[in-house]
Amino acid sequence: PEIRVAILTVSDTVASGKGPDRSGPRAISVVNSASEKLGGARVAATAVVSDDVLQIKDTLLSWSDVEKMDLILTLGGTGFTPRDVTPEATKVVIEKETPGLLYVMMQESLKVTPFAMLSRSAAGIRGTTLIINMPGNPNAVAECMEALLPVLKHALKQVRGDKREKHPLHV
Amino acid sequence: PEIRVAILTVSDTVASGKGPDRSGPRAISVVNSASEKLGGARVAATAVVSDDVLQIKDTLLSWSDVEKMDLILTLGGTGFTPRDVTPEATKVVIEKETPGLLYVMMQESLKVTPFAMLSRSAAGIRGTTLIINMPGNPNAVAECMEALLPVLKHALKQVRGDKREKHPLHV
Amino acid sequence: PEIRVAILTVSDTVASGKGPDRSGPRAISVVNSASEKLGGARVAATAVVSDDVLQIKDTLLSWSDVEKMDLILTLGGTGFTPRDVTPEATKVVIEKETPGLLYVMMQESLKVTPFAMLSRSAAGIRGTTLIINMPGNPNAVAECMEALLPVLKHALKQVRGDKREKHPLHV
Ligand code: NA
Repeated sequence: PEIRVAILTVSDTVASGKGPDRSGPRAISVVNSASEKLGGARVAATAVVSDDVLQIKDTLLSWSDVEKMDLILTLGGTGFTPRDVTPEATKVVIEKETPGLLYVMMQESLKVTPFAMLSRSAAGIRGTTLIINMPGNPNAVAECMEALLPVLKHALKQVRGDKREKHPLHV
Repeated sequence: PEIRVAILTVSDTVASGKGPDRSGPRAISVVNSASEKLGGARVAATAVVSDDVLQIKDTLLSWSDVEKMDLILTLGGTGFTPRDVTPEATKVVIEKETPGLLYVMMQESLKVTPFAMLSRSAAGIRGTTLIINMPGNPNAVAECMEALLPVLKHALKQVRGDKREKHPLHV
Repeated sequence: PEIRVAILTVSDTVASGKGPDRSGPRAISVVNSASEKLGGARVAATAVVSDDVLQIKDTLLSWSDVEKMDLILTLGGTGFTPRDVTPEATKVVIEKETPGLLYVMMQESLKVTPFAMLSRSAAGIRGTTLIINMPGNPNAVAECMEALLPVLKHALKQVRGDKREKHPLHV
């Protein structure tokens, strides 16, 4: 059972054609490199939207409810400026929060730079889709994925509802 | 003034009689061992319910509003599968969040296993009752309790409204 | 462009004249000491209110929407007693959460005392104002400010909407 990943770049600059998408291609590369550890993951969709709650929300809803993606990574729009609204759009969409993923991403990112504390990332589950906000910095995608990789395959099987998927330490 | 603790095992398997309750008895033992450090705690109620929002919610409401328990520990239902809804039921019930307890439980659990990041535990206060979600893994109960023990007696006195209960470092 | 800071002491004891405000003066001193690192900050307003959701909320709304403060620090009312409601009042007012600031304040405070886990502080952005809850303990203000100082100047510029304010590590 293949893991389908969707990657959403959130950026006014990229969406308006005023700058290149540096995070999206980096995220594709990170997912492909981690494919085996994720249980056979491939990038099944990518998109670029403006820093706009409705556009972000609509894409997340389509990818989770219609396309039934296993994992959605959003890139960017997690900072403190007035245009940064990715976490707000995400919180409207998710049905269950997954705070432990945020804890570990924050813990690991802070080892790289104190500016990591300015990430306002949200993460959670909608239906059988796991949605995770990552900062727009291309390096952050690799750092965050690295932090989550030990558990992500297991997490995605749980989200799918695979009842046998109890990890060894849980009786 | 005795500390009354209630323990709720949340598990379809246990509730349907298809498997034994391993977490509940372990939690009772953990509370009894910590009784003195908690200021004289005893387990005053236990129950088992399915992974069902309404059943969880009703039990939490009865134990906090009617039985006036000091502390409720829920066990299980904090993972990523579709049936895991304990945090969602808990968030509906609590009036005030206590994020520092979650921070420390996550910090300590991650020292044992990276799978700890898959706990979605919530915690908070309703009336004069402190409610804390713990994972279903029997070992997790002991680990989480260990992490909270240095402050739990003080926390419970604050929740009761004991105004003299300012710890020495707070002027 | 000067950074205007407002400091709100939340305390029944101080508001009723039954005790001195120890946290407020300490916070003023901390802000003044950090002024240069914050990009030229000064305390532009101070107030004392009771542990009352409406009074806290009204002050936060006035300072953010009318006075357009850059930064509001609240002091106290973050504990577990029935009267501690500062986080609840703050969550009603903020439009965007800033969980990374809370993470770092918790991380650093826990190095000083395990009782730090009893802080229920909230933090977030309303309009162009950053609002941060700090514990009432005068030392906590200094500890929390110390933890945030490496990024606070940058954070406040982002909140103001300064688009050039991308830090060097973010492309
Ligand atoms: Na940590």
